[in-house]
Amino acid sequence: MKREQTLGEFELIKRYFRGAALEAAGDQSAIALGIGDDAALLNIPSYRQLVISTDSLVQDTHFPSNCSPDDLGYRALAVAVSDLAAMAARPLAFTLALTLPDVEENWLNDFARGLAEAAQAFQISLIGGDTTRGPLNIGVTVFGDVPCGLGLQRSGAMPGDLLCVGGPLGDGAGGLAVVLGQDMPATLSIADRNYLYQRFWRPRAQCELGQALAGIASAGLDVSDGLLADAGHLASRSGVAVHIWADDLPHSPALGNWTASQRLQWMLGGGDDYVLLFSLPPSHRASLDEWQARGWSVSVIGEIRAGEGVWLDEGAGPQRVGRPAGYNHF
Amino acid sequence: MKREQTLGEFELIKRYFRGAALEAAGDQSAIALGIGDDAALLNIPSYRQLVISTDSLVQDTHFPSNCSPDDLGYRALAVAVSDLAAMAARPLAFTLALTLPDVEENWLNDFARGLAEAAQAFQISLIGGDTTRGPLNIGVTVFGDVPCGLGLQRSGAMPGDLLCVGGPLGDGAGGLAVVLGQDMPATLSIADRNYLYQRFWRPRAQCELGQALAGIASAGLDVSDGLLADAGHLASRSGVAVHIWADDLPHSPALGNWTASQRLQWMLGGGDDYVLLFSLPPSHRASLDEWQARGWSVSVIGEIRAGEGVWLDEGAGPQRVGRPAGYNHF
Repeated sequence: MKREQTLGEFELIKRYFRGAALEAAGDQSAIALGIGDDAALLNIPSYRQLVISTDSLVQDTHFPSNCSPDDLGYRALAVAVSDLAAMAARPLAFTLALTLPDVEENWLNDFARGLAEAAQAFQISLIGGDTTRGPLNIGVTVFGDVPCGLGLQRSGAMPGDLLCVGGPLGDGAGGLAVVLGQDMPATLSIADRNYLYQRFWRPRAQCELGQALAGIASAGLDVSDGLLADAGHLASRSGVAVHIWADDLPHSPALGNWTASQRLQWMLGGGDDYVLLFSLPPSHRASLDEWQARGWSVSVIGEIRAGEGVWLDEGAGPQRVGRPAGYNHF
Repeated sequence: MKREQTLGEFELIKRYFRGAALEAAGDQSAIALGIGDDAALLNIPSYRQLVISTDSLVQDTHFPSNCSPDDLGYRALAVAVSDLAAMAARPLAFTLALTLPDVEENWLNDFARGLAEAAQAFQISLIGGDTTRGPLNIGVTVFGDVPCGLGLQRSGAMPGDLLCVGGPLGDGAGGLAVVLGQDMPATLSIADRNYLYQRFWRPRAQCELGQALAGIASAGLDVSDGLLADAGHLASRSGVAVHIWADDLPHSPALGNWTASQRLQWMLGGGDDYVLLFSLPPSHRASLDEWQARGWSVSVIGEIRAGEGVWLDEGAGPQRVGRPAGYNHF
């Protein structure tokens, strides 16, 4: 309905992202045609399946309005890539649907830089998009591929499997507390504060670990809603009970500044951690040592049993956990 | 940041679209995993390339706030599918990133119904998405496939090629005038008014024609920005001059109710027509008769010449057209 905008602005925006993101490589052999036509073209080898996930980030729902645009650009892509990791996929390409209230050169510059940094970090390349005027909304659709039949799903966990996570829990929630400027413990160092800030804005989508899980883990997903909520997804899709051992949940040194009770609450329900949660058949236990030898902070936090639901053992035996609130985007 | 929402609402929304859109078929053999996991899985045969396009629709920029949700659902998908047609692709699947200010059951019901109607019409199936709270924003990413190397691009038009369109021009702009409730000519019948309303809200993405153009047309795209603007894209990407014969531009009987001058303005600059614009080597001229015999309203509206830019001939010889405004979403 608003037709006053000039082609000039539109072309300008395309150029920002052309310059910033296409230099980030990824497996360019997959990309037959990138930005600039009606659509992009990808080559997918016949022995691999295409993996697709879409996410949108909205101001005040997913991020505060006063955030830095380069952090925002990084996070928007990293969060979407984490869904590829959760499917054991190799990242290939992404599209960006960007709705902006106005064209601010500095903002676009910074946003595109953060986006390009994430593209470089995860080796994924921008292949197309759409830019529109309106309330700020960032839509990212990511594409990866996985050997046929080896995509890691939420179903498939079996009684007797080990329950594992790919890294520390609770940093997403601790990071959010830093980002929102909440009261901090007096013992928190500047280094710890910076660590948590980065953990919120620059999640480390676990793509290498994810690809290593293909054909090894029986089920998996990424911890985005919170451990209990995501364990619940695994339990219901696999038709099993997920048992979690509270004393074995890994956390970062930075989270050691909070009380055990606050920490446990964040580890169980905080969300935004973007580490992988997966079930591992006991026959593959040796893989854990191998991954740890590579420096990946993978650890066992429970087990899969026959039954249903999520059970938490804080030392006094397993207690069934009610439907958790988690972080819910609606 | 707003975490008050319940999981219940979120699950409810997923169910709307699960019920409404998955029953729409498409080539289901391509879909290895649909809605419900971290990502979807598609199988792409080795002799075909994946085609990807993304679009977002924003209230007051792309549609008025008082529109009917089922029209909106239909249009959001049809507009995106038109980009697949413009690449000569076969539609396969799509994802939906829906940002909503609140959860209104009637609205969702109607929107999902319109979306499902379009999915059925274009034989394309919903495979995933994301639902978020915020100002209304509809992001659609569509997937199709095309035989390797036969994707129709904007580059490739050669001097001597015929310039063709796949249907009437100007209906998008005429339809918008109806939708906005602007003054109508006294001669306009209710049937004509309905026709134009439908042409705006339910564009007919030309998927069959698009697929027929694979390996036949030398270049092509869909008319979304307006004929002159889109002809300009073809000219610059192909490195040729595009000559348009004003007297040969096809229009619907409904547009006959307006003055020749208003009609020409809409046909040249209106946009939103979503018919295909393509260049056809003279050796393939016989294909035109074949397509017309199938009932497709394909016609020749000009030719490709050596040179650059867009030239319009209104009977007094070709005049170079300045950079057109077109319909620009920013």
